[in-house]
Amino acid sequence: MPVVETHLIEGYTPEEKKRLMKALTDAIRFVVPAVPEAITVLLNERPVCDYMRGGSLRTPAPALPDPSAIVMDYLRAMEARDLDRAGMHLGDRFAMVFPGTGEMTSLTQLIEWAAPRYRFVTKSYEGVEALQGEQSAIVYTRGTLAGEWPDGSAFSGIRFIDRFEVTGGKITRQDVWNDIAETKGKK
Amino acid sequence: MPVVETHLIEGYTPEEKKRLMKALTDAIRFVVPAVPEAITVLLNERPVCDYMRGGSLRTPAPALPDPSAIVMDYLRAMEARDLDRAGMHLGDRFAMVFPGTGEMTSLTQLIEWAAPRYRFVTKSYEGVEALQGEQSAIVYTRGTLAGEWPDGSAFSGIRFIDRFEVTGGKITRQDVWNDIAETKGKK
Amino acid sequence: MPVVETHLIEGYTPEEKKRLMKALTDAIRFVVPAVPEAITVLLNERPVCDYMRGGSLRTPAPALPDPSAIVMDYLRAMEARDLDRAGMHLGDRFAMVFPGTGEMTSLTQLIEWAAPRYRFVTKSYEGVEALQGEQSAIVYTRGTLAGEWPDGSAFSGIRFIDRFEVTGGKITRQDVWNDIAETKGKK
Amino acid sequence: MPVVETHLIEGYTPEEKKRLMKALTDAIRFVVPAVPEAITVLLNERPVCDYMRGGSLRTPAPALPDPSAIVMDYLRAMEARDLDRAGMHLGDRFAMVFPGTGEMTSLTQLIEWAAPRYRFVTKSYEGVEALQGEQSAIVYTRGTLAGEWPDGSAFSGIRFIDRFEVTGGKITRQDVWNDIAETKGKK
Amino acid sequence: MPVVETHLIEGYTPEEKKRLMKALTDAIRFVVPAVPEAITVLLNERPVCDYMRGGSLRTPAPALPDPSAIVMDYLRAMEARDLDRAGMHLGDRFAMVFPGTGEMTSLTQLIEWAAPRYRFVTKSYEGVEALQGEQSAIVYTRGTLAGEWPDGSAFSGIRFIDRFEVTGGKITRQDVWNDIAETKGKK
Amino acid sequence: MPVVETHLIEGYTPEEKKRLMKALTDAIRFVVPAVPEAITVLLNERPVCDYMRGGSLRTPAPALPDPSAIVMDYLRAMEARDLDRAGMHLGDRFAMVFPGTGEMTSLTQLIEWAAPRYRFVTKSYEGVEALQGEQSAIVYTRGTLAGEWPDGSAFSGIRFIDRFEVTGGKITRQDVWNDIAETKGKK
Repeated sequence: MPVVETHLIEGYTPEEKKRLMKALTDAIRFVVPAVPEAITVLLNERPVCDYMRGGSLRTPAPALPDPSAIVMDYLRAMEARDLDRAGMHLGDRFAMVFPGTGEMTSLTQLIEWAAPRYRFVTKSYEGVEALQGEQSAIVYTRGTLAGEWPDGSAFSGIRFIDRFEVTGGKITRQDVWNDIAETKGKK
Repeated sequence: MPVVETHLIEGYTPEEKKRLMKALTDAIRFVVPAVPEAITVLLNERPVCDYMRGGSLRTPAPALPDPSAIVMDYLRAMEARDLDRAGMHLGDRFAMVFPGTGEMTSLTQLIEWAAPRYRFVTKSYEGVEALQGEQSAIVYTRGTLAGEWPDGSAFSGIRFIDRFEVTGGKITRQDVWNDIAETKGKK
Repeated sequence: MPVVETHLIEGYTPEEKKRLMKALTDAIRFVVPAVPEAITVLLNERPVCDYMRGGSLRTPAPALPDPSAIVMDYLRAMEARDLDRAGMHLGDRFAMVFPGTGEMTSLTQLIEWAAPRYRFVTKSYEGVEALQGEQSAIVYTRGTLAGEWPDGSAFSGIRFIDRFEVTGGKITRQDVWNDIAETKGKK
Repeated sequence: MPVVETHLIEGYTPEEKKRLMKALTDAIRFVVPAVPEAITVLLNERPVCDYMRGGSLRTPAPALPDPSAIVMDYLRAMEARDLDRAGMHLGDRFAMVFPGTGEMTSLTQLIEWAAPRYRFVTKSYEGVEALQGEQSAIVYTRGTLAGEWPDGSAFSGIRFIDRFEVTGGKITRQDVWNDIAETKGKK
Repeated sequence: MPVVETHLIEGYTPEEKKRLMKALTDAIRFVVPAVPEAITVLLNERPVCDYMRGGSLRTPAPALPDPSAIVMDYLRAMEARDLDRAGMHLGDRFAMVFPGTGEMTSLTQLIEWAAPRYRFVTKSYEGVEALQGEQSAIVYTRGTLAGEWPDGSAFSGIRFIDRFEVTGGKITRQDVWNDIAETKGKK
Repeated sequence: MPVVETHLIEGYTPEEKKRLMKALTDAIRFVVPAVPEAITVLLNERPVCDYMRGGSLRTPAPALPDPSAIVMDYLRAMEARDLDRAGMHLGDRFAMVFPGTGEMTSLTQLIEWAAPRYRFVTKSYEGVEALQGEQSAIVYTRGTLAGEWPDGSAFSGIRFIDRFEVTGGKITRQDVWNDIAETKGKK
């Protein structure tokens, strides 16, 4: 039954507001087991001239981009080996850890590391989940990998999960887990 | 600068309301990059006699328990091999997948599967993250494993991540990824 | 989908507030064809010390009594020929009109007028409807009459409708229509 | 002193909103005997993109037409014997009861029934009152009838009251009471 | 931490609204020692068609002009001996009291009174403060006077304070205190 | 017509809240010329557990004391030559300026300065006005002085005005203007 009314300075697109209202709905559902139809979210956008804090008029900050969209575009660019496009999503202090690696900081490092492991790999996604962490947005993607081993034999259905930190619209960390070693060990 | 006012029927503990207000704060932060001090969340608890929906008075649903707390208690019980306590957290249609297994549905299955893999294992946690999914709350825990291989040699620092679905206060799914096979492969 | 939030000074019983919230719900339904489940009414009772109008604290007026309840008690008292109890519900400038009468101002006038018309009459109610008029609450009651004609023969199923004005908790006007003459004419 | 704030999705005309605010004002006055000047009603129309219920954006339902206006147009059409226009206001399951009739379902039935009763009849209105019932809007009209008896003699000042049910903008029931038989009986 | 939400009929300029929000902020600060950043003021301007009081639509009153601006323009006009412009700011029942005078009601009276006192005087302002009184806005200006005595010698740094009442946008009273006599006495 | 709703953490006395609501009413009247009866102020006190800012629960700051009351108590103590009580109202960096003095920082300085000027003085107040300045509350008191000159002759009706700055409940500055020199000059 909760009603959530949010006052904010105007300047957001319908898409950004929908994302915000969805996040507020889920915040309620996280604690209150109301039937969805009973959760109402209202936005009250104010012109800049109708909002004052601390005695001063304020300007609204542009909305943060959707971190899930950023991560998915990065992953698709990587799958297409479009390192330029993928790289545009990375923050200055980007770091990534893959199974068995230490921290890597560049995509070329990753390519070199992967070269002896598989000829190529494609991902099928079963879920993408995002939340707001203390410092960054966190995005989880999971699903299965398919591709070819270095010897040209095919593999598929290997589970994976990636965790991303997205800070200010840039990916600042990627952590990857998968069952490649488990599968190889059984080969 | 957003102000979030939430009206709900009274009947929640301060702890539950704090969890709700934190979730609403993070929902705002997920989209609007306001400085934290500028995000205000207000609850407006109403007596049952001050709320009507569809022409009828309503009673508030009890708050959902904290899914992170449920998962952590389950994990600690498993580490202590207290299967009774761990089992109390599982829902009727519980299923779990570990690296290289299919779906397992009971804790004894898990114990049998693990027996040839390691003598024992303990977990160090680096992060616990929760969010509300479409049907369930989702909890992610990650960190490193330490323990002994079947031959008595020790291992440590092996990365893991667990994903849980918590539905109505019960764990209904657990998915586990880790670098055990990767590490063993290098041994 | 409307949400109706009403601020008022505290001092109303749950029953009075339920009546108020029901009236607000119906006010919405009168104009907006929302499904009932989507109409939310919230009361926000304020302590006297939290409300100021025109620079002055105010005290809440006691709720008006339910005009339907007043009318029904009056009608039941009349049916039981309890003129004392019925009379307590009448305002100083009470007037009533029955089929074929001019304005009558006392219950004894009514009794005298009715004497040659029927030995007694009882009412079955099919509906009671109330609304707020410009000066008074308006209550409509309708249903059928049964009783005995002066010659001792019985009648029943004769349609009637009464309209009442209730001002400040007192009945100030009653207008009655029915099919008694129609029925008698056919006898 | 009450303040009524109503949030609704935008899409209503000033006339519809005035009718809504008036209904909300009367709902307050029905229970709280505040001086009118102290009853404030505020509407807060939201763009479609600023309202979410159950995680979904919603579209506003068009306002219900004013049931009093529908009834008055129907009555004027009947008085002018414009059965086509009158008929357009009737719902599929329309039924009506006049003094001494059973349920009639068509206007031609009514015309036939009235033919031997009076040559014509016109209505003077003293009041029109509307309220929201459980299923329908209810409209009461009352006043006096004037016209000519079958013998050509005139009558006037005969009290009447009509009750209408208006469902989804169509009249679905009409109940009529008047003093015609009373008056005729005295002739 | 207070959040002040104000509903008003639309029709105010950004400058008028800024003045209103600043006044509301100061009203909070007058009683609640919150850090300024924690005081949020929101305006909610309503179209005329979304506000009803006492069952009637209302039109917004034009904002009162800024009384400090009126007073300062009057004072600058006086300093420039532009009696026409100064006079336009005076209300019908204007009265003023200077040190040692009774009530004067016209600017020419003032000029005559001042003539033997100093050749000219200019004002340096240290502060202008305004507040809302019971009937009028009150404006205080204070600072120091400089100029020439009748004998042509210069003076400066003489403290003064003026108090103004501004009613409906017109100055209706001016009271002046200063140290001219004190200074002269020491000469 | 404005409605001012203020949300604040609970912990204020009825007297403090009345002062706050009066200040908010005057803030509206300062800009909007609504009839007083049309200005509604509502407080919405929240328990500590229903308010979060920046992700943290907050505790309310105790209300600031009424600066007018502080100033009046100080003035009455001074008139009664109760320097102890008067001194308790002074802040650490208190300074005062009287006609013809520089800055004085202690009450004994003031007493010494006044000694040759008059035997004693009493004040009649015509007005006390307070407002919130940038750093401090500002209080103005004005009226007339009566007393005895050093030669024992009486005086009365001498206009005065005092301006006070009250910071954190302590008087930090007093500026005094009056017509004593003007009056003496005429003697």
